[in-house]
Amino acid sequence: MTYCLGIINRFGIVLAADSRTNAGVDYISTYNKLFDFSLPGERAIVICTSGNLSITQGVINRLHRDLQSQEELNIHSLPNMYEVTRYIGSKLRQIQDQDRPWLERDRIDFHCSLLVGGQIRGEAPQLYLIYTQGNFIQATLETPFLQIGETKYGKPILDRTLTYDMPLEAVAKCALLSIDSTMKSNISVGPPINLVMYEAGTFMARQKLQLRLGDPYLAKIRKLWEDSLRRAFESMPNIEWQHPPVEDNQQEDILID
Amino acid sequence: MTYCLGIINRFGIVLAADSRTNAGVDYISTYNKLFDFSLPGERAIVICTSGNLSITQGVINRLHRDLQSQEELNIHSLPNMYEVTRYIGSKLRQIQDQDRPWLERDRIDFHCSLLVGGQIRGEAPQLYLIYTQGNFIQATLETPFLQIGETKYGKPILDRTLTYDMPLEAVAKCALLSIDSTMKSNISVGPPINLVMYEAGTFMARQKLQLRLGDPYLAKIRKLWEDSLRRAFESMPNIEWQHPPVEDNQQEDILID
Repeated sequence: MTYCLGIINRFGIVLAADSRTNAGVDYISTYNKLFDFSLPGERAIVICTSGNLSITQGVINRLHRDLQSQEELNIHSLPNMYEVTRYIGSKLRQIQDQDRPWLERDRIDFHCSLLVGGQIRGEAPQLYLIYTQGNFIQATLETPFLQIGETKYGKPILDRTLTYDMPLEAVAKCALLSIDSTMKSNISVGPPINLVMYEAGTFMARQKLQLRLGDPYLAKIRKLWEDSLRRAFESMPNIEWQHPPVEDNQQEDILID
Repeated sequence: MTYCLGIINRFGIVLAADSRTNAGVDYISTYNKLFDFSLPGERAIVICTSGNLSITQGVINRLHRDLQSQEELNIHSLPNMYEVTRYIGSKLRQIQDQDRPWLERDRIDFHCSLLVGGQIRGEAPQLYLIYTQGNFIQATLETPFLQIGETKYGKPILDRTLTYDMPLEAVAKCALLSIDSTMKSNISVGPPINLVMYEAGTFMARQKLQLRLGDPYLAKIRKLWEDSLRRAFESMPNIEWQHPPVEDNQQEDILID
């Protein structure tokens, strides 16, 4: 599995990804899943990938090739983020067309998804999630984050804390903790963590971070976080226990509500 | 879905369950999933259920019937928690035998699982998880909690905070927060929350709690928790951003590790 996360708010975008891939617990490897396709000064574009690695690597490879061979349509030539996302989706469809019959025949999982976040001059920052089928959705104010891969462990912290007006540094810490929580609870998600913080209007992905296993910063925030969690529920008001039984063993089952 | 949770430590056992069942998002109901079968003074036994409701209700019904008709083997007559758990597993197998062919024919999910926690005089407290197939595992010191149903959202808080030596009141708050986090992030898990805190050596489930939607205590701990989380990552040391690129857009993909 994988866990990638994109968050957008009024100050910009944060994208983060773990680096673990696995084909069964006896075949675990490390691959980068966060790719920066920015053209500094004109556009910032960062992509995170999850799912079948041969397919997502194929997509990234084709994006690079179109750039290098100066195809008319490429990630730097397209005029807006919507068209860029459609173009990436079309590359995904090409690879699916090419490989899916072979994968389906052997019942190999062909699912994958991508996050695309960034900003092109003349537009506001945007964040998209592209599905296996090449279609996509966009993050909006109401739900300012998108997740792919192993999404459940790291969702509560996002649901509880993210706001549209939160400083981007706080958003970045929140993203790190969301990934770190997932890593701690599920071995299919693992380090290094790659993180990009994009400030709206800068048109380049300036703030980047890679946290490897044993990184002192990662160890420090993990320790601080665990201490905070423990203190938080220790400081919670005591439970007022009720003494009537939840269910009496002498009765038939009753509906409580 | 459902989320039920059992935690055992040196001071006793905490069991908790939500109360939502659903057959699709357009058919959501409320059922109690926490059942107290204690025989106060001699044994404390609490069961939580998840999965196919007709099957788990069938199991609970048979446990009650064996008690009422004073069958030789019943949940109050069996001499130890291991035998009690085997007996509950055998009831589950009876219902599976009876109903599964009908369910499988229409591709209806027949999976279910149960948590069984408690203590019988002469033994230490014990906590078990019974699978669909009637077999079971026991919680041990290394992994002092067992979860059934929608388990992922509420796992990080357990992984980060539970210890074997933690006061039982703190364990109970931790269980509440684990369920509340899951409710907040997944609509298939919902109130009321039922919670039992069993103190080792008391042989009765004395501390019980039911928190309904809008319960002031639930609202209060949710607010406190969210505030604590936000403060926690605001107080975290700032990220030291690295400026070399995670991936240069002029290169082919490279492995970072």
